[in-house]
Amino acid sequence: MSEAYREMWRALDMDLEKHDVFLGGLPGAFSEVFLQQENRPARMAYFDNALAEAHGGRIKEILDQKKAGRPVAGTFCVFVPEELIFAVDGISIGLCGGAQFTVPTGEQVLPRNLCPLIKSLMGFKLDRICPYFQAVDFLIGETTCDGKKKTWEILNEYVPTYVMELPQKKTEADLTLWEGEINRLKEEIERRSGQAITAEKLAAGIKKANARRAALARLYRARQADPAPISGKDALLISQLAFFDDPERFTAQVNSLCDELEERIARGEGVARKGAPRLLVTGTPMALPYWKLHHLVETAGAVIIAEETCTGTRYFAGQVAEDGLTVEEQVKNLARRLTAINCACFTPNKERVEDILRLAREAKADGVIYFSLQFCQPFSVEGRLVEKALQEAGLPVLRLESDYSEEDAAQLKTRIDAFLEMITA
Amino acid sequence: MSEAYREMWRALDMDLEKHDVFLGGLPGAFSEVFLQQENRPARMAYFDNALAEAHGGRIKEILDQKKAGRPVAGTFCVFVPEELIFAVDGISIGLCGGAQFTVPTGEQVLPRNLCPLIKSLMGFKLDRICPYFQAVDFLIGETTCDGKKKTWEILNEYVPTYVMELPQKKTEADLTLWEGEINRLKEEIERRSGQAITAEKLAAGIKKANARRAALARLYRARQADPAPISGKDALLISQLAFFDDPERFTAQVNSLCDELEERIARGEGVARKGAPRLLVTGTPMALPYWKLHHLVETAGAVIIAEETCTGTRYFAGQVAEDGLTVEEQVKNLARRLTAINCACFTPNKERVEDILRLAREAKADGVIYFSLQFCQPFSVEGRLVEKALQEAGLPVLRLESDYSEEDAAQLKTRIDAFLEMITA
Repeated sequence: MSEAYREMWRALDMDLEKHDVFLGGLPGAFSEVFLQQENRPARMAYFDNALAEAHGGRIKEILDQKKAGRPVAGTFCVFVPEELIFAVDGISIGLCGGAQFTVPTGEQVLPRNLCPLIKSLMGFKLDRICPYFQAVDFLIGETTCDGKKKTWEILNEYVPTYVMELPQKKTEADLTLWEGEINRLKEEIERRSGQAITAEKLAAGIKKANARRAALARLYRARQADPAPISGKDALLISQLAFFDDPERFTAQVNSLCDELEERIARGEGVARKGAPRLLVTGTPMALPYWKLHHLVETAGAVIIAEETCTGTRYFAGQVAEDGLTVEEQVKNLARRLTAINCACFTPNKERVEDILRLAREAKADGVIYFSLQFCQPFSVEGRLVEKALQEAGLPVLRLESDYSEEDAAQLKTRIDAFLEMITA
Repeated sequence: MSEAYREMWRALDMDLEKHDVFLGGLPGAFSEVFLQQENRPARMAYFDNALAEAHGGRIKEILDQKKAGRPVAGTFCVFVPEELIFAVDGISIGLCGGAQFTVPTGEQVLPRNLCPLIKSLMGFKLDRICPYFQAVDFLIGETTCDGKKKTWEILNEYVPTYVMELPQKKTEADLTLWEGEINRLKEEIERRSGQAITAEKLAAGIKKANARRAALARLYRARQADPAPISGKDALLISQLAFFDDPERFTAQVNSLCDELEERIARGEGVARKGAPRLLVTGTPMALPYWKLHHLVETAGAVIIAEETCTGTRYFAGQVAEDGLTVEEQVKNLARRLTAINCACFTPNKERVEDILRLAREAKADGVIYFSLQFCQPFSVEGRLVEKALQEAGLPVLRLESDYSEEDAAQLKTRIDAFLEMITA
């Protein structure tokens, strides 16, 4: 593949040598984590190929569309209303970083005591090995956490970064602020695209994003079956690809996969043996290509049946009402998503505990892994309250903190094994 | 002193044994850091005594006032409008923690990867060795950083904690949000105190806080003289005591000290030799009894002539206009302080660079120490931009990160010595 796309990458001002080294490691990791699974759903083939073409075919597609005048925006948070980008026929790419490879470069401009996701995304830009970062016209950051909020100021030196102010509570005053922020983003996107966002266009954008959310919700419902018809690893990969793929094609493929999964469920067929420990993962997002935790857990014999994360249920939470007849009404509907997503960036955030308990019940979880990326203060501080609530509800919890390196893999494995032993005893 | 106050501490449900151990270490540290300085201003005697009576006489005074019906509130941030507390004749105490002693206890409920100030304040409450924490009726937290924002949820289990949402930008929409937050705090204080906040009472509260800010600003102007008439250590101690002392008495004493300092300046008399390297410190706050950095720097022969911190210039920045005739106008005036304080919690925060450059110029600084408490993400990420701007302006910068332990003292000393050598070369 590489050879066919080198010219394209060169034109994107990428560091080809470093990019070769980065890509060189991926097929082996992918094969070990994904291809060696038994009894995978046949329709995972689409997603395997989407990953293989992530730096190739998909980039070519985006560049062709960009040439045709479609704006390309990078985002880093499920709160950023992609519906506005879709409304101008734009391309929205989720650019959080999930690779240790770029962390050391990120640390050249950021403190080491910062979450690896942020250091990785900064490193991808500085290293010039992410064609998405190279292809975007601008970025849309937000103020969800201190680390990201302050990093946009530095990232803005390298690529124009517009910052939305996400409120920190969910009162009426916050909804008003957020509605204003969405209106201001709308104006920014109109300015950059040279297109007015009409009610008709925004309605189409909302439908597109809603359809993707509905497909992912359907996938999550399928995972509630016992035995689970799909591994947690595969479901995570699909979620990760949602941030990069063409939304309509992706939605159709997720629905097609769900057809297959639902047939499996009807036949009582699964990927893990019936009775394998079923775990819910909750915490910080897992950006592509971060698969470490899922791989450790499922290799140990358990199956992950849901992720209460931004690369899981929080990504598709909060369908936007489609009854808005004017842009003003539609923006109000977009703003209300604020109340439906229970991120640790809010205070208080008790609804997240309710979400976790409901998800665990629906998916018949035997236990919960509370996972925080290192130095993620919102999720690590909130962990204590969640852990207490789960213990009171009689749900075993394992708290893990990790980064993108492989150094703690053996230690994590020991703790996961002990947890599974405790659950199945 | 201890014996006379034991009964009072017992009534406050304090852990007397642990408190003895904590207090036991302070006189020695205080003597080493403060009393061994040469040529101190005579009127530091008041502040030395205020520190000595911080857990004794001052607490008795507060408890007597509390018995007389005056509400006692704890705060943690210079943005919290103490004017509203003063308006109901209440007592406002700044409760940030500055001691390593309580950090391990704080870590029982908080992640270790969190700033020592937050872990220390949490530990003071859990250890029951801070009579102020024991005496308060309620706390007023805010959303300035992730660590504090999420810690209030835990602290609220131990003492009622009301949380103000501080905006993250400084646009008109943010001023509107903040004005609403101040109004909501006003209602909370009215409810708790059983007193209506009238324009007359609030005007008095504003005058009281303005007078204290003016006195501290006068102290800072005095420090601009060369030789400096007062050490950075002494000035820091005064700032730290501002959070605990009776505001009117404190203001009078700071003004009285300034009379003495201005006479010294007229005589050309100082604490450091004329020509001693003059350093500006910028970064995170230094809560009582954190004196480590100042002690190291001034022992090495330099003098600190300003702190661009929350226990420095940010504490007294932004006098509140006294022209408000109605409560509504006064609240608007209080809200405008938002724009005058340039904390790293805002994005962007370029005005902070301007503040530092202006302060350095006014105080004839030879160099700047950029100081971050460990794991303070806003100030550590922002450090890069500040450092670049200062270097462009030709001002030498030393970046230091530390915590409350003494473990890195030798390493810090080496770096400070090298920096001073470079400056004076």
